[in-house]
Amino acid sequence: MKPMNVLVIGLGLIGGSLARALKESTLAVRVLGNSRSMHTVQKAIERGVVDVGDANLAVVLQELQAGDVIVVATPTLSVKAVFQQLKDAVDRGVIVTDVASVKGSVVQDAQTVFGTVPEFLVPGHPIAGSEKSGIDAVNAQLFVKHEVILTPLVNTSSAAIKTIADLWSAVGAEVSLMSVNDHDATLALTSHLPHMLAYTLVDTLAQRSQQADIFRYAAGGFKDFTRIAGSDPVMWRDIALANRDALLNGLDDFSQHLADLRAAIAASDGEHLQQLFTRAKKSRDDFGELYARRKPDSH
Amino acid sequence: MKPMNVLVIGLGLIGGSLARALKESTLAVRVLGNSRSMHTVQKAIERGVVDVGDANLAVVLQELQAGDVIVVATPTLSVKAVFQQLKDAVDRGVIVTDVASVKGSVVQDAQTVFGTVPEFLVPGHPIAGSEKSGIDAVNAQLFVKHEVILTPLVNTSSAAIKTIADLWSAVGAEVSLMSVNDHDATLALTSHLPHMLAYTLVDTLAQRSQQADIFRYAAGGFKDFTRIAGSDPVMWRDIALANRDALLNGLDDFSQHLADLRAAIAASDGEHLQQLFTRAKKSRDDFGELYARRKPDSH
Repeated sequence: MKPMNVLVIGLGLIGGSLARALKESTLAVRVLGNSRSMHTVQKAIERGVVDVGDANLAVVLQELQAGDVIVVATPTLSVKAVFQQLKDAVDRGVIVTDVASVKGSVVQDAQTVFGTVPEFLVPGHPIAGSEKSGIDAVNAQLFVKHEVILTPLVNTSSAAIKTIADLWSAVGAEVSLMSVNDHDATLALTSHLPHMLAYTLVDTLAQRSQQADIFRYAAGGFKDFTRIAGSDPVMWRDIALANRDALLNGLDDFSQHLADLRAAIAASDGEHLQQLFTRAKKSRDDFGELYARRKPDSH
Repeated sequence: MKPMNVLVIGLGLIGGSLARALKESTLAVRVLGNSRSMHTVQKAIERGVVDVGDANLAVVLQELQAGDVIVVATPTLSVKAVFQQLKDAVDRGVIVTDVASVKGSVVQDAQTVFGTVPEFLVPGHPIAGSEKSGIDAVNAQLFVKHEVILTPLVNTSSAAIKTIADLWSAVGAEVSLMSVNDHDATLALTSHLPHMLAYTLVDTLAQRSQQADIFRYAAGGFKDFTRIAGSDPVMWRDIALANRDALLNGLDDFSQHLADLRAAIAASDGEHLQQLFTRAKKSRDDFGELYARRKPDSH
């Protein structure tokens, strides 16, 4: 039996790490790579991230046949343009998935391009990342013991779901299913909102006149807090735009809570503050225990 | 020559870690401990955190003589009450320092209790901590390669400053001097504000109905971001109250920046977002490099 072809489009941190991890897995796969940058494709081949690759998507698409898999791993708002280029390839029975952080926009893009959301499309999102980005940050262990959320629709082929779930399991991930809306609402709060706060905090502090001292005396808390502000700006621009409504909802909720906290500090209401901090500490500690139990080696 | 006595009042994470680190240092010191809790004093003695100790402050104070050091390591708003109990001991030429995260309130407390800020008081603040607290979290390496800021006034004894600086150097810290106002304004932004944001984010999310899913799918960013929300609630209540004005100033500045970001997202202004994220990433990366150069083993 010939090995399954897996074509990864976009060889950044996520796409490159998945490609490399698939090559190191026990699956019988041949990994093809595509990036708009010839330089990136060349690096990916030289470093064993992919088996073969080309900067011309049409060229690599010709290698695919029925049952093969395409992973779209470009920034969220580029997914639509990639779908347009795939329209011919999918006629040959190929399964398509993606790794975008927002699923509503991907489903909408598919609807626009294909006329309907195709049964061979399995929208997906690995909950893994790093403040590093690009092919130089590739890490075959990136997905080990990390969640991957698939958000199939009612008409999605169950065989296609199984194929994609098997790919992620083979690189160590834990696969679960969610609805598109639940996914986007939950991630708006747990991932997109924290990134907005980290970017805003760093930008606020950087504009203060005492910037040198601020960065000199930044405590451990600040450093942890702002690590994620080192993430890829284009990726996060796309996420903020694609998940706009859920993110605005989370921002407004957070801002209301922050205004309440401000009022308590202004009123020197120590009892209110202690209650709030105690409640938050308890939630965080409970979460920490849950997390530690489930993902011993995750950061 | 008899070893210098160092009395640590308050045997929590900071006080206990300093006591233990001083005992392990090359300094010829005898470390005395005091805590309101007899149980904590007993633990501190059994675990070699202090040489001797007592829950009755008056008892340990009798051991001190001219040139000895008292470190007040209780929560910020308890410092005043401790100063009141020290009024007699300081007659015997003892040097006093503290570790509170806010210096303005400590100076004001000293003024109130002693009538004037005494020349033997060296206000200090080690920029070190953990989301763990209490005697069980004691770590003799806590201060290694971490900044300690001393905020002496114009009348502070230079001999007293040197004694306190030598103590911190002996446990591996890097000592620098700042004015009280600069310290409180800088730390309001780099430490106090991030803690308020982390507490607020955790509390906001915990109140959402999908809490279980939120904590299940929290990405690495959320976990980093909220680690500091596990910090001691009483300590942070005191800090928020003691540094109220500088913190409100930082909160308002942050809230204005967050409102600008919200407007850009609502208007789908991708250019604005990309510029903001790129600028913040650059500040953060520059800071990261600075930090990595100066503190190779710090988290």
